[in-house]
Amino acid sequence: MQAAYYTGNQEFNIQPATIQPPQPGEVQLRVAYCGVCGTDVHIYHGAMAHRLRLPQVIGHEVSAEIAALGEGVTGWQIGDRVTVRPLQPGADDPSDNGQRHIGKNLTFIGIDSPGGMQSHWNVPAHTLHRLPENLSLKLGALIEPLAVACHDVRLGELQAGENAVVIGGGPIGMLIALVAKHKGAHVLISEPNPARLELAQAMGLTTVNPKDTDLVAEVEWFTNEAMADVVFEVSGVAAGVQAMTNVARARGRIVMVAIHADPKPVDLFRFFWRELRLIGARVYEPEDFEQAIQLAASGELPLDNLITQVSPLTDAKRVFETIDANPAGMKYMLQCDV
Amino acid sequence: MQAAYYTGNQEFNIQPATIQPPQPGEVQLRVAYCGVCGTDVHIYHGAMAHRLRLPQVIGHEVSAEIAALGEGVTGWQIGDRVTVRPLQPGADDPSDNGQRHIGKNLTFIGIDSPGGMQSHWNVPAHTLHRLPENLSLKLGALIEPLAVACHDVRLGELQAGENAVVIGGGPIGMLIALVAKHKGAHVLISEPNPARLELAQAMGLTTVNPKDTDLVAEVEWFTNEAMADVVFEVSGVAAGVQAMTNVARARGRIVMVAIHADPKPVDLFRFFWRELRLIGARVYEPEDFEQAIQLAASGELPLDNLITQVSPLTDAKRVFETIDANPAGMKYMLQCDV
Repeated sequence: MQAAYYTGNQEFNIQPATIQPPQPGEVQLRVAYCGVCGTDVHIYHGAMAHRLRLPQVIGHEVSAEIAALGEGVTGWQIGDRVTVRPLQPGADDPSDNGQRHIGKNLTFIGIDSPGGMQSHWNVPAHTLHRLPENLSLKLGALIEPLAVACHDVRLGELQAGENAVVIGGGPIGMLIALVAKHKGAHVLISEPNPARLELAQAMGLTTVNPKDTDLVAEVEWFTNEAMADVVFEVSGVAAGVQAMTNVARARGRIVMVAIHADPKPVDLFRFFWRELRLIGARVYEPEDFEQAIQLAASGELPLDNLITQVSPLTDAKRVFETIDANPAGMKYMLQCDV
Repeated sequence: MQAAYYTGNQEFNIQPATIQPPQPGEVQLRVAYCGVCGTDVHIYHGAMAHRLRLPQVIGHEVSAEIAALGEGVTGWQIGDRVTVRPLQPGADDPSDNGQRHIGKNLTFIGIDSPGGMQSHWNVPAHTLHRLPENLSLKLGALIEPLAVACHDVRLGELQAGENAVVIGGGPIGMLIALVAKHKGAHVLISEPNPARLELAQAMGLTTVNPKDTDLVAEVEWFTNEAMADVVFEVSGVAAGVQAMTNVARARGRIVMVAIHADPKPVDLFRFFWRELRLIGARVYEPEDFEQAIQLAASGELPLDNLITQVSPLTDAKRVFETIDANPAGMKYMLQCDV
């Protein structure tokens, strides 16, 4: 019964969890696994400090069993295996355009409120998605990032038979490439890190290292000069932004997945000249979680390959240090039922 | 029977036109009016020199009557009143994605080949659109830029009742605003030039001067805080690119109309955060010309207000000088049947 409190300055304090009864509309989860997201790593590096209330438990990529039901919760039973869609919509803002998953007053659970790096976690029942029996709890903790990938592919309107280029081979880039390939697209993933390239190849993906090879020429070859119908910019770096407009065909769709903290130069002339489309995509909607669960349960994606390491919650600090020391790593998970 | 040959260095040579018989598939036009496009002004300033073969007749915003038919031309008669869609598609490129109006091997008539600033002009018959009897030949020379506006509004998928913000009040920005308003949208046009603002207001448009007023606050007020469903970036300047992401609502569409010669910083974070869309839009397709002709013939748009001056073809040089001296001017036309 432990909780990993992030206390700031790259330190965690592992304490006995205070097990609180769920409030009305909430469930109490017994957390099985909590994946470490890039966002958690950013927090560890000092970003988003204004959104946290330290010491705070972070984490939002969770698989769990229901341990207790709050008042008024229906449709769920103690023992149900679940994952959490960590979005708490706030009051509608007129500029939200009905898009509650990205509303101005949205609360992201695990950043703006306590997260899942603890053995017991209370969350609103509306955030739950059921995990099927044949899906392991380890893979259950991959559903949240997989739902991001499903959202990105869906918003890119990728169709079977289309050419897709994924720029950036981190966990989200890999998941996008796997989802796109499963959808029947012809997928090329661009990534400079050799270890990541090796992993991508082991998962059956076609890869290119843009440091060794001219990316535009490679996409020309890969697509028989048709170029990409859909490009996913997942790298977050200026070179990715430069490449994204060069590898798209006329009216190609470019999905902006990466978080670019600062404005970056974009080839707007090429958007005009080739009538390109840029599509911002953030988090997910309920249907993306459902698709992610179905995909993971199908066993048709090599998701196990993406789990780099599973460590006990008590090792939280060491895990973040390992992530910093091993940029080629993919998904690190904390086992929370300790 | 005259032609205005652009000879480079901001000089025109007015010469007797060489009247050539139309080739097979071509028609010979007796040009009535030829509008001066921003692109023509760019050419006058030395841009696109590699695409011209000097001395060259330029111009592509034309109304005309058919003077002669080349071999094999059907469906047209001598005397028919027409305008020209100045696109000559070339061989399909695999990366064109079937978009022949922006194909890699497209020839733009009036830049890549001789244009309409002459009394007699031979063009392929497939470029013609018929002008109805009740549409004046002066307004007929406005169809080409109006078709640009129709294309931009169509690609932005603007719907009646939606909020639109047009950034930039040159001729294309004004036409977009008029088309958008006619479609039933709630339109605000942003432009720093007071004379242009006055003209926009005279045409019944709601305006804002972003030099005097905070544009974001104005859009909040104008839309009851819903912000813009569709933004048209027509300014071509960095301030417009900065504004476009700030005035769009969640999943708002931003249509990139302007020609940004150099990459400019874009707030990609906001594309991600609010799931914005950027839609490049260039020239037009046949349906845009048909819509433009229908709109102009309806008499429901105050198009006459946009014609700043009509001058004889022989004054071509003076007209370009006047345009340079009068940045608030809108559409200058040359009368070519001289």
